Amino acid sequence: MIEPGDRVLLIGEGREFFVKAGPGTLSTDKGQFDLGLLVGATAGDILTTHNGSKFTVRIPRPTDFFTYGKRSGVPMLPKDIGLVIAYTGMNHNDDVLDAGTGSGIAAIYFGGVAKTVKTYEVRPEFSALAQKNITEAKLKNVEAVVADFLAAEGLFDVVHLDMQIQPEHIEHACSLLNSGAYLACYTPFLEQMAIVVDTASGHFSEVHTHELIEREMTRSKRGTRPSTSICHSGYITIARK
Amino acid sequence: MIEPGDRVLLIGEGREFFVKAGPGTLSTDKGQFDLGLLVGATAGDILTTHNGSKFTVRIPRPTDFFTYGKRSGVPMLPKDIGLVIAYTGMNHNDDVLDAGTGSGIAAIYFGGVAKTVKTYEVRPEFSALAQKNITEAKLKNVEAVVADFLAAEGLFDVVHLDMQIQPEHIEHACSLLNSGAYLACYTPFLEQMAIVVDTASGHFSEVHTHELIEREMTRSKRGTRPSTSICHSGYITIARK
Amino acid sequence: MIEPGDRVLLIGEGREFFVKAGPGTLSTDKGQFDLGLLVGATAGDILTTHNGSKFTVRIPRPTDFFTYGKRSGVPMLPKDIGLVIAYTGMNHNDDVLDAGTGSGIAAIYFGGVAKTVKTYEVRPEFSALAQKNITEAKLKNVEAVVADFLAAEGLFDVVHLDMQIQPEHIEHACSLLNSGAYLACYTPFLEQMAIVVDTASGHFSEVHTHELIEREMTRSKRGTRPSTSICHSGYITIARK
Amino acid sequence: MIEPGDRVLLIGEGREFFVKAGPGTLSTDKGQFDLGLLVGATAGDILTTHNGSKFTVRIPRPTDFFTYGKRSGVPMLPKDIGLVIAYTGMNHNDDVLDAGTGSGIAAIYFGGVAKTVKTYEVRPEFSALAQKNITEAKLKNVEAVVADFLAAEGLFDVVHLDMQIQPEHIEHACSLLNSGAYLACYTPFLEQMAIVVDTASGHFSEVHTHELIEREMTRSKRGTRPSTSICHSGYITIARK
Repeated sequence: MIEPGDRVLLIGEGREFFVKAGPGTLSTDKGQFDLGLLVGATAGDILTTHNGSKFTVRIPRPTDFFTYGKRSGVPMLPKDIGLVIAYTGMNHNDDVLDAGTGSGIAAIYFGGVAKTVKTYEVRPEFSALAQKNITEAKLKNVEAVVADFLAAEGLFDVVHLDMQIQPEHIEHACSLLNSGAYLACYTPFLEQMAIVVDTASGHFSEVHTHELIEREMTRSKRGTRPSTSICHSGYITIARK
Repeated sequence: MIEPGDRVLLIGEGREFFVKAGPGTLSTDKGQFDLGLLVGATAGDILTTHNGSKFTVRIPRPTDFFTYGKRSGVPMLPKDIGLVIAYTGMNHNDDVLDAGTGSGIAAIYFGGVAKTVKTYEVRPEFSALAQKNITEAKLKNVEAVVADFLAAEGLFDVVHLDMQIQPEHIEHACSLLNSGAYLACYTPFLEQMAIVVDTASGHFSEVHTHELIEREMTRSKRGTRPSTSICHSGYITIARK
Repeated sequence: MIEPGDRVLLIGEGREFFVKAGPGTLSTDKGQFDLGLLVGATAGDILTTHNGSKFTVRIPRPTDFFTYGKRSGVPMLPKDIGLVIAYTGMNHNDDVLDAGTGSGIAAIYFGGVAKTVKTYEVRPEFSALAQKNITEAKLKNVEAVVADFLAAEGLFDVVHLDMQIQPEHIEHACSLLNSGAYLACYTPFLEQMAIVVDTASGHFSEVHTHELIEREMTRSKRGTRPSTSICHSGYITIARK
Repeated sequence: MIEPGDRVLLIGEGREFFVKAGPGTLSTDKGQFDLGLLVGATAGDILTTHNGSKFTVRIPRPTDFFTYGKRSGVPMLPKDIGLVIAYTGMNHNDDVLDAGTGSGIAAIYFGGVAKTVKTYEVRPEFSALAQKNITEAKLKNVEAVVADFLAAEGLFDVVHLDMQIQPEHIEHACSLLNSGAYLACYTPFLEQMAIVVDTASGHFSEVHTHELIEREMTRSKRGTRPSTSICHSGYITIARK
């Protein structure tokens, strides 16, 4: 049941709005919508504007925070976040350390999967924005820390790095991992990937670098073909302690 | 702490063994290993064979069940399982329905992420083998059901199909989903992908088909290059109710 | 040596102009350029506008006709034209039949490689435009024919089809090929590729379908990475008689 | 018409033989074949072994020399050779310089397209083997030179390098090219590609690096899907003077 302050998606009339339940009004070209009506509503309820346009209530999922979360840069794509989850076998028993937080999108996906997530970010304004996204995603197991990753302490099952990686970061990550646990490093540039692989090879037992090329297939009356969509790509190195 | 009957990985001397803790002996070319020593041990402990060879104890993660789980066919690859998790935003609040179970590898990954997983399989011998893998992965939230997917009832946040898909399966999946929830269909062949897309387009609001081409990058003294590894691939259609 | 009416590229001042040598003036934001100066010039000559801006003379190559040739639709990409040349082993002993001509871009590439090229196109206005491009490319061994491909006669070493392909086109192509010669079919959609493969399998000894995914690698101060450029793609089926 | 000493392919009975016309006998499990029968035969002729098995005569094309030519290493793949031809617009007016020759496969493809090809190779035994392949391909416009590429002189329309490339090779290539002509460099490793791009960017007006990922599509009774074939890949940098 939706509570005051909860994020909600309103879908209908070919439109989609990412709103907050509670006092206030959403003005649309399909009429005024009283956001107070959302309190107490549930997924799939159909509510109307003052002039009768109908909108369906949707409770946001992590995919919606990828679309509507506030951004401080280019976040990792879902395909790459999925690769990290799958190749580390991330699960509800895991304590995960994530650095740098960026907009918090990866931390939100990880927070839905792992037991706990600590996400490090040195830039306070980035961490604050990410904290806002995390709070709206209602994840109580994700902690946004404003600090350098090298200051992180503790023991983790997965360490995930999406930042300017230097050899000391790989060495520090190794010291934070349980035996058999995984390091995952996202690097958009090949030169950084090389630093990760070369350093990790001296500290970890298995080191593999993957790249995912994603294509969308489209079907129309003319037929089926790969789309020509733009899709940036990075290198993901997975290393096991 | 490892209990009798738990699956354990022994790593050392360039070898890896997937064993069960408890009574019994593992014979290796590096000596005899008393499996009873594993009871009470923890990840990272180093134990020795009768002639002093050292092995490190590793608690299996989902990735290890992908490698060592018993198989009844070709399972989905981790890259594709990760895509399903990421594009559905699968998380610990979710009730997931999976059909067909196959070896249970996807169900094991999903079981580590979701609140509950029900996995349907019509072939009893496949379901029994999957149940064994699930039990060894110590997942109490995953239920292997021997039944046709069309017999499934209830409401779910994600329905995942990896089977011979006909239009009625898409329609039934739609009836099993909460508002805003996701259907994910894995189809190795284009003809099946077309059935999925065409049927889903009439029942779901958003339908997208993705393909992931995965490449491993290798680094040696000669330099860095994409590897020439074999990697089969399928089409994954994601539809949202 | 450039003759009157020849196509010439003028390169300089960060600009590129595709002009005709002979009477007339090119007006640019860098001054007026007397096109009569080009007659008798050669590649690499540097000529100036009335106010002293310098332009280098370039004799166009097939790649320039891909960029500057007049278009009647989306032409095949160079990567795919190159695949046809390489997988058929097209060479200066070959008589090539091409249908449909489109803008004539493929015929221009083929004309630079083969002994003769006959290119069929049913739409007279397309064929006329292609003929203009072919004439400007100074290819005397390429003949643009306004006719249905099914009306083509003779014996060829390569038949190349880039048109709406039906089974009878594959059968007719087979009758036009020497023993050991090649058919190459470009199909943007999977459904057409299936028609080609299924028909060709009954008439040819070897049938293979290829797809090329092209990526450009970019280097900047930040590093090296795959670009995110758009690149449409088609299926090329090569069959040998 | 086939002359004594010509290379011929015999196709039939599910077998393929790459033989020389003239005195001698080919022993097959389908009977003895008198190679003297090939002299005077033409493509498509059907000849028989002593016990009546039938073989069709095929005159080899460049594609056959890729398959049957003697090799001294891993040659460039047809997809990459086709890319070089297409992106340089190689044609029958062109003088082409190729280095290192390797098995001569690229030189054979280029020789079928260009006016002349000079191919440089420092290792005499490699050049001798390539010369044999070139002679069998009956290309009189291809000259195999045993020398270092840095010793090459003259002016060319395309320079193609498939060797260990150092900055001085790029600079020398530039001095060998006509205005508007192309350099094409094949580098299997990223580190070499970086050397090529960085040096070329200072000497050429347009520098682009391409990679081709090739997939074969397969059709069976089960359906249509991308094959899982192995396909090595390199980076091709095209620079224009």
